[in-house]
Amino acid sequence: MSKPYIRLDKNNAAVLLVDHQAGLLSLVRDMDPDRFKNNVLALADLSKYFNLPTILTTSFETGPNGPLVPELKEIFPDAPYIARPGQINAWDNNEFLDAVKATGKKQLIIAGVVTEVCVAFPTLSALEEGYEVFVVTDASGTFNEMTRNSAWERMSNAGAQLMTWFGVACELHRDWRNDIEGLGALFSNHIPDYRNLITSYTALTK
Amino acid sequence: MSKPYIRLDKNNAAVLLVDHQAGLLSLVRDMDPDRFKNNVLALADLSKYFNLPTILTTSFETGPNGPLVPELKEIFPDAPYIARPGQINAWDNNEFLDAVKATGKKQLIIAGVVTEVCVAFPTLSALEEGYEVFVVTDASGTFNEMTRNSAWERMSNAGAQLMTWFGVACELHRDWRNDIEGLGALFSNHIPDYRNLITSYTALTK
Amino acid sequence: MSKPYIRLDKNNAAVLLVDHQAGLLSLVRDMDPDRFKNNVLALADLSKYFNLPTILTTSFETGPNGPLVPELKEIFPDAPYIARPGQINAWDNNEFLDAVKATGKKQLIIAGVVTEVCVAFPTLSALEEGYEVFVVTDASGTFNEMTRNSAWERMSNAGAQLMTWFGVACELHRDWRNDIEGLGALFSNHIPDYRNLITSYTALTK
Amino acid sequence: MSKPYIRLDKNNAAVLLVDHQAGLLSLVRDMDPDRFKNNVLALADLSKYFNLPTILTTSFETGPNGPLVPELKEIFPDAPYIARPGQINAWDNNEFLDAVKATGKKQLIIAGVVTEVCVAFPTLSALEEGYEVFVVTDASGTFNEMTRNSAWERMSNAGAQLMTWFGVACELHRDWRNDIEGLGALFSNHIPDYRNLITSYTALTK
Amino acid sequence: MSKPYIRLDKNNAAVLLVDHQAGLLSLVRDMDPDRFKNNVLALADLSKYFNLPTILTTSFETGPNGPLVPELKEIFPDAPYIARPGQINAWDNNEFLDAVKATGKKQLIIAGVVTEVCVAFPTLSALEEGYEVFVVTDASGTFNEMTRNSAWERMSNAGAQLMTWFGVACELHRDWRNDIEGLGALFSNHIPDYRNLITSYTALTK
Amino acid sequence: MSKPYIRLDKNNAAVLLVDHQAGLLSLVRDMDPDRFKNNVLALADLSKYFNLPTILTTSFETGPNGPLVPELKEIFPDAPYIARPGQINAWDNNEFLDAVKATGKKQLIIAGVVTEVCVAFPTLSALEEGYEVFVVTDASGTFNEMTRNSAWERMSNAGAQLMTWFGVACELHRDWRNDIEGLGALFSNHIPDYRNLITSYTALTK
Amino acid sequence: MSKPYIRLDKNNAAVLLVDHQAGLLSLVRDMDPDRFKNNVLALADLSKYFNLPTILTTSFETGPNGPLVPELKEIFPDAPYIARPGQINAWDNNEFLDAVKATGKKQLIIAGVVTEVCVAFPTLSALEEGYEVFVVTDASGTFNEMTRNSAWERMSNAGAQLMTWFGVACELHRDWRNDIEGLGALFSNHIPDYRNLITSYTALTK
Amino acid sequence: MSKPYIRLDKNNAAVLLVDHQAGLLSLVRDMDPDRFKNNVLALADLSKYFNLPTILTTSFETGPNGPLVPELKEIFPDAPYIARPGQINAWDNNEFLDAVKATGKKQLIIAGVVTEVCVAFPTLSALEEGYEVFVVTDASGTFNEMTRNSAWERMSNAGAQLMTWFGVACELHRDWRNDIEGLGALFSNHIPDYRNLITSYTALTK
Repeated sequence: MSKPYIRLDKNNAAVLLVDHQAGLLSLVRDMDPDRFKNNVLALADLSKYFNLPTILTTSFETGPNGPLVPELKEIFPDAPYIARPGQINAWDNNEFLDAVKATGKKQLIIAGVVTEVCVAFPTLSALEEGYEVFVVTDASGTFNEMTRNSAWERMSNAGAQLMTWFGVACELHRDWRNDIEGLGALFSNHIPDYRNLITSYTALTK
Repeated sequence: MSKPYIRLDKNNAAVLLVDHQAGLLSLVRDMDPDRFKNNVLALADLSKYFNLPTILTTSFETGPNGPLVPELKEIFPDAPYIARPGQINAWDNNEFLDAVKATGKKQLIIAGVVTEVCVAFPTLSALEEGYEVFVVTDASGTFNEMTRNSAWERMSNAGAQLMTWFGVACELHRDWRNDIEGLGALFSNHIPDYRNLITSYTALTK
Repeated sequence: MSKPYIRLDKNNAAVLLVDHQAGLLSLVRDMDPDRFKNNVLALADLSKYFNLPTILTTSFETGPNGPLVPELKEIFPDAPYIARPGQINAWDNNEFLDAVKATGKKQLIIAGVVTEVCVAFPTLSALEEGYEVFVVTDASGTFNEMTRNSAWERMSNAGAQLMTWFGVACELHRDWRNDIEGLGALFSNHIPDYRNLITSYTALTK
Repeated sequence: MSKPYIRLDKNNAAVLLVDHQAGLLSLVRDMDPDRFKNNVLALADLSKYFNLPTILTTSFETGPNGPLVPELKEIFPDAPYIARPGQINAWDNNEFLDAVKATGKKQLIIAGVVTEVCVAFPTLSALEEGYEVFVVTDASGTFNEMTRNSAWERMSNAGAQLMTWFGVACELHRDWRNDIEGLGALFSNHIPDYRNLITSYTALTK
Repeated sequence: MSKPYIRLDKNNAAVLLVDHQAGLLSLVRDMDPDRFKNNVLALADLSKYFNLPTILTTSFETGPNGPLVPELKEIFPDAPYIARPGQINAWDNNEFLDAVKATGKKQLIIAGVVTEVCVAFPTLSALEEGYEVFVVTDASGTFNEMTRNSAWERMSNAGAQLMTWFGVACELHRDWRNDIEGLGALFSNHIPDYRNLITSYTALTK
Repeated sequence: MSKPYIRLDKNNAAVLLVDHQAGLLSLVRDMDPDRFKNNVLALADLSKYFNLPTILTTSFETGPNGPLVPELKEIFPDAPYIARPGQINAWDNNEFLDAVKATGKKQLIIAGVVTEVCVAFPTLSALEEGYEVFVVTDASGTFNEMTRNSAWERMSNAGAQLMTWFGVACELHRDWRNDIEGLGALFSNHIPDYRNLITSYTALTK
Repeated sequence: MSKPYIRLDKNNAAVLLVDHQAGLLSLVRDMDPDRFKNNVLALADLSKYFNLPTILTTSFETGPNGPLVPELKEIFPDAPYIARPGQINAWDNNEFLDAVKATGKKQLIIAGVVTEVCVAFPTLSALEEGYEVFVVTDASGTFNEMTRNSAWERMSNAGAQLMTWFGVACELHRDWRNDIEGLGALFSNHIPDYRNLITSYTALTK
Repeated sequence: MSKPYIRLDKNNAAVLLVDHQAGLLSLVRDMDPDRFKNNVLALADLSKYFNLPTILTTSFETGPNGPLVPELKEIFPDAPYIARPGQINAWDNNEFLDAVKATGKKQLIIAGVVTEVCVAFPTLSALEEGYEVFVVTDASGTFNEMTRNSAWERMSNAGAQLMTWFGVACELHRDWRNDIEGLGALFSNHIPDYRNLITSYTALTK
């Protein structure tokens, strides 16, 4: 009754960042804003670091939902960027779907706002089409913990794997020796406790 | 090992509102009362908005459980309204069951008080009969979080999908272009943060 | 893909109360003591009310674990009472096992202290032997929420259904008309909010 | 539809302690440090008590991650100790894998820091190879509860059983009569409430 | 700069129970209902035990606020009972004020529902007239913790002393030897943990 | 050592609503948005109900802070409305100060966003000038509980009294008989539990 | 309006440990038991380290309250030890009072179980007699946070200073150079995070 | 009985940053690390922005406590920097005291790690010498909330004012018109929600 380990593979994974828009972020209340901002940027940085194909999408960005947060646009200036005209589920947008297929990857790492809609809907659609889906829970936000827990349960029951950005980075990297300094810098920039460890270590060994 | 996405379809869904009675509401302590009231009315409003067949039912409304909250009666003046004479599980009441069948829908969106009884029992009965059941967790309330978590686990294990009213609205609507103003009004009326986004947006663009 | 509703049946259920001992209760810290005491007594009262065969068991009651709480002994003076000489899993004790079998029931309602041991172990054993097991989560206690959550996950994954005493009572009773006053008294004695509803109702209708 | 009880067997179990390093411990914030320290030492003591083969491993212990906490080294002076040169998943390290296989056990009891990486990755690998895996949740730590919950869900869905050190000890021991004083001492040393019960009991019966 | 210890004196204290009414109790959400009910009854029992003059009062008991909870009426059948016709601050009611004065006591122990109104208002009035006021915080309830904290701050700044029923009982009793069994019974009836201590102690020493 | 009761007097009180602006409200995270919105509107409604002079003010409402929430403007169409050109402390704005003085009242009831700035600064200024200040804590919001607690401590130490809207309404009204239906309507509109009491009461007595 | 700094002085301070008894400890639920045990032992160790006169006292230790926890007796074998025959407030016991006076100190460092009685009562008595009192909040425990907060407010208002064992140690020590290793050992034994810092530091500098 | 408003004045204030060291930061567990890091840097940035004299100090920075976090050194390359050789209370260090006096300011804004020692001790010393002290609570961290609350109570009772970095910035700035863009940039860099407001505003008005 052994169970296969569906493991992230940096050669077979793409990242979907869904609706991290300045207006919608005011709806996110299941995490402290300082932590949430850091998590989203950490996910973006790791995607960049591992050279994963990354797709940006927004919903009604000229209305109250507001524009994509500028940092993401800056980190991924050349990424496919689909400003959806109305589809709530990004998977219902053909341009988005084509961008996903164009990556040629079978593993999708997804995060967005809000969790139970912008993340859950494309997750369920992708699972239906046979993708392996990894939800980055701490780079996805929503109204409150009750909503989050409902959404996690729905996605997990459908076969999505729940991870956090740190776990994603570690599973993609596999071995520190692939690049100690690169991974160390990623952690130092986004984990204050780890940065402190490095600071103390460096002071004593320089 | 792909998994079908069991997705809400506004042409195939009905709403069951079970035992939102003035007395029973005093038992609900797993949510702030202001938030709970808002969630229940939001679910009612979305049901109205999408023209979903809606069924109201109560348990012993002439006794300590108290009458249905008047807002629901007002929103659905013509809905089937089954004041159950004693059955705790609404599904055990033939009149209720007939009303469900009369809708001709295979998807049931359900909420009620209290979660582990008035919601869970008909949910489990409906699943047994092959319905697709969507529990609106944030429009359902109970004694405390421990009770809620037990009930969620039981229903989810039996195949129910846990959602919240916002996710239900978005999955039913599919595309903002179907009616931007209608959906926007629904959100503005029941999500203070979204209302604020609209207020600011309107002030700057009028 | 419909799923059978495994539903409590008052003619086919027995109750197992495992190790509610005066010493062990000092270990229970995942619930307020006033609430926990009330839940345990509520479960005992409902078992009595529905005339369910009930089995009491203790572990090392002459040592630090302490004696069974006297209230349970008083409520069930004639119930099988197995003071286990050493087996941690009550199911490993033949006398206990015989008592369970002697009830002739296939549904077991179980609660105890501590959740991850005294409840989880016999639950897993009973599931293996084909019993339907209903864990009364709020009449079972343990060290902290982390421990509780681990235990719930293990039992739920193995097929146990998580319920609370109120849900158990309602699922056994089925219809208020079977005995309005009896069920009302049970609720009035163990749910302060419900008692208040009855008090107000009575004052206005007497 | 009965389900086999996959039960810990002291003759068939080994313990894996992964990356309990002085630096990494500063990342653990989902538990109070006093409690976490006690849980880790309790797991180590029970492993010693039951003579379970135990394997220690660390990640980059000469860098910021820091050395293994000295207590573990002292408790297991002769245990296999694999200082991994870079593999993040201990299972990817052949020396570690050989040590696991050399135990000849099919049940693996695992704990470590941080939960979603150092525990989850080898857990998923071991499950894939047919081991029965028991995660000691309270001797494993990570950044916050959100991360922990994601990791638990992923491991549990893959077939790991979530337990705590107390449950592990009880399931391994089976019967108090195997050694009352040994188990009592283990509990007295790591459960203040149990120690108090023994203190009071001893005072009254000496 | 020493400060006098304003200490409860059983010969100089009276108890005021304000608006513990069946309807108003549904507003109390800053405490678990099982715990709150127990605290109110514990305060009533200690008042009886120490023979303190006790005054009952209600607000609009024939309206939605509902009747006094019956237990209090039963414990104090002969106490002054002032059903206020409209005054929100009980101190504004002359009959109540006369009853307070008639006790001839200078120390007032007060509890009620809701804290920031029914307790705070008479507390502030009594302090103004030179009474020593002891607020029984855990036998007083209100909407949420935020409200409670505001009310505590207001009363404490005005000179009220915040206590809980257990502290009140201990300060009134002074010395166990005044009546070991009476005080022990009070604690056993209202503190489950203490009851367990007595149960274990009795089992070992009988 | 008796202490005067500084009591709200409806003939001597004015209300200051400071910076409840659509943009700034997205900063408020120490309260659930549904509850906070309700509290602010409840305060506005009670101010209207008691005919208290009310002053509205905003900070930079044409910039990111956004416009005053429209409901407040609607409730007080004729109130002094001071759109401050830059002063962070409203008290530093002469127009605002004049409006306060023009009320001729010595008691100021104040609420706003965010608590430690827009509420605390004018509170401290008003106290310095001899006003009696009543902070409506639950109609004031800020970043998190830590910030709130710091602000409360600062204001309370300076002599401000912390209240909530419900306490304010009760202290102003003094006696239900002044207008039972008016006060009842206020409570029914803003306290779901109270509304339920009235609904049940009405059903039984009509 | 400068305020004198009432500062702990190791030459002028005594420690009072009140009722840390095996039975009473089961009542302590405002702190995790692992943390609480550590705090009490840390306070004992610091008292020993600074050679402060220390007084032990118990209440009814031959009854359900149980014996003093053995560790304290072992750390202070020669300390005055007053087993009070009945006085609830230790200050009411002449033997205890004489022991306090015999120390000749004017600063009292106090901790005990439960906070609102065994700590608060002698604290208020000592303040009345002109002692400077320092309550060690984290080595004192009680039923729940509500009770604790009430007790803190009462003691703080009466002039007691609230500290924790770590603050006490630091204020007594004044300068690390008085004994780096002694203070470091105290912290290493009772603060896991500090122990980890030392472990990492030592590994890199040895 | 009016009370003077002791208000921060940018011409009369200095900032003290005490012991924000890489090792000590691992002790801080009363705030999320992402939030705490942001708060400390926000305080540093505002100090820079307002050109306040700023003093840095550390305790044993070559030992386990670790070096000052590099960001602070970078922001204040020319600030007085006192590496204390042993004094726990920075105020006991003459070099530090001289640096404070050399600023010529009477208002001290202080933050540090850990709150009850490195912040509280110099705060109490400074108050004794007549300084006005403003504790930046959210840029100060410690072991847990219980410790924090004790420390706040001690400092507040001694006359310190509790503020947060945002309140400090606003009270120093007084009027947005003094420099809209500078203050806006400070907020945008350290308050994600405010940044989002600016992003949306800019998108609509550019």
